[in-house]
Amino acid sequence: MRRPRRKADETREDILTKAEAMLRDNGIAGFSIADLAAALGMSPANVFKHFHSKAVLADAICERHVSRMIARFQADGSDAPAPERLAVAVCQLMEVHLADIRENPFLFEMLVLMANNASLPSALRYKSLIEAMFKDLIRHGIDAGVYRSVDLESMSSTVGAAFASVLHPVFLMHADESELRQRCASLAALVNAALQSPLVK
Amino acid sequence: MRRPRRKADETREDILTKAEAMLRDNGIAGFSIADLAAALGMSPANVFKHFHSKAVLADAICERHVSRMIARFQADGSDAPAPERLAVAVCQLMEVHLADIRENPFLFEMLVLMANNASLPSALRYKSLIEAMFKDLIRHGIDAGVYRSVDLESMSSTVGAAFASVLHPVFLMHADESELRQRCASLAALVNAALQSPLVK
Repeated sequence: MRRPRRKADETREDILTKAEAMLRDNGIAGFSIADLAAALGMSPANVFKHFHSKAVLADAICERHVSRMIARFQADGSDAPAPERLAVAVCQLMEVHLADIRENPFLFEMLVLMANNASLPSALRYKSLIEAMFKDLIRHGIDAGVYRSVDLESMSSTVGAAFASVLHPVFLMHADESELRQRCASLAALVNAALQSPLVK
Repeated sequence: MRRPRRKADETREDILTKAEAMLRDNGIAGFSIADLAAALGMSPANVFKHFHSKAVLADAICERHVSRMIARFQADGSDAPAPERLAVAVCQLMEVHLADIRENPFLFEMLVLMANNASLPSALRYKSLIEAMFKDLIRHGIDAGVYRSVDLESMSSTVGAAFASVLHPVFLMHADESELRQRCASLAALVNAALQSPLVK
């Protein structure tokens, strides 16, 4: 029974790869499952067997794209103090997005459409990445005695929310880059002041 | 020369009011300038003389809607300490949006489309309202000796950005209300800890 399952997975990957290439070149507006099936030499019914709707397909492409972006992103592993590490990590992640907008405008536009619906798998995946990153950074600061002791789970979610305006695709699409960089640094300073305050919970 | 100018302003208001009513009932997807002109007993050319595109018209409606929403919103003028006032004000403003989503779903959907482009007049107007509200709240806290002294202009902008995920229409549209309320309270606690910290700048 293994062989057919692997084949189905391979077909799924082939569909994703071709769909992504078509979307990368021409955007989602002119994209159709019919054209995709023709380009793959498949029947549209076969494509629909793997992806029940254009939305599901788009979401899967976004999820793959986000995963690759994450893999490319290297949080600063330096010996810098926690507050500096946090500021550097957030601003680097924002720069990865800004590069993505320049290099893959059509794909990023699709990501923005997807991100408007926070309950989609790709949006949830991105959210959990962000929170995991903040969890590491805050834990590091607490261990080093720089940040106050807090509930890691809820604090990483709150800190992630505080950076939404510089990390969420919707905000990055039409924003002025120098304004974004300024805002990113200011938000990092605000969050760092809170995390070092005895008042933080 | 005065009479014709007043008439033009009146015509502009008539167009806005009729367009808003049509959008409120049926959303933007089925909306057209041709239908609007017919409903007003005008020529489409006459409508276009006042609003050069559907986007300009939609933005003007959003701006009017945001202005009314602001007028309806009363920041807490109580004697509560600054941190509590800030928390109450942000969460009340969020509730105004949530009520708006329930009462005017089509209009709010349009607001979300508009808000995706931060350079539109209605989006800029909303941003300046938010920042003015935070400026008042932070100034009050500094005057009362509760918040540290900061640059009011830049801090109100940073604090506004920190609350984007609970105040920006894009985030409110599909979000879970109880999660939003939790996040709003946590962000307020984080910002209040920062504003009372000697580390804040």
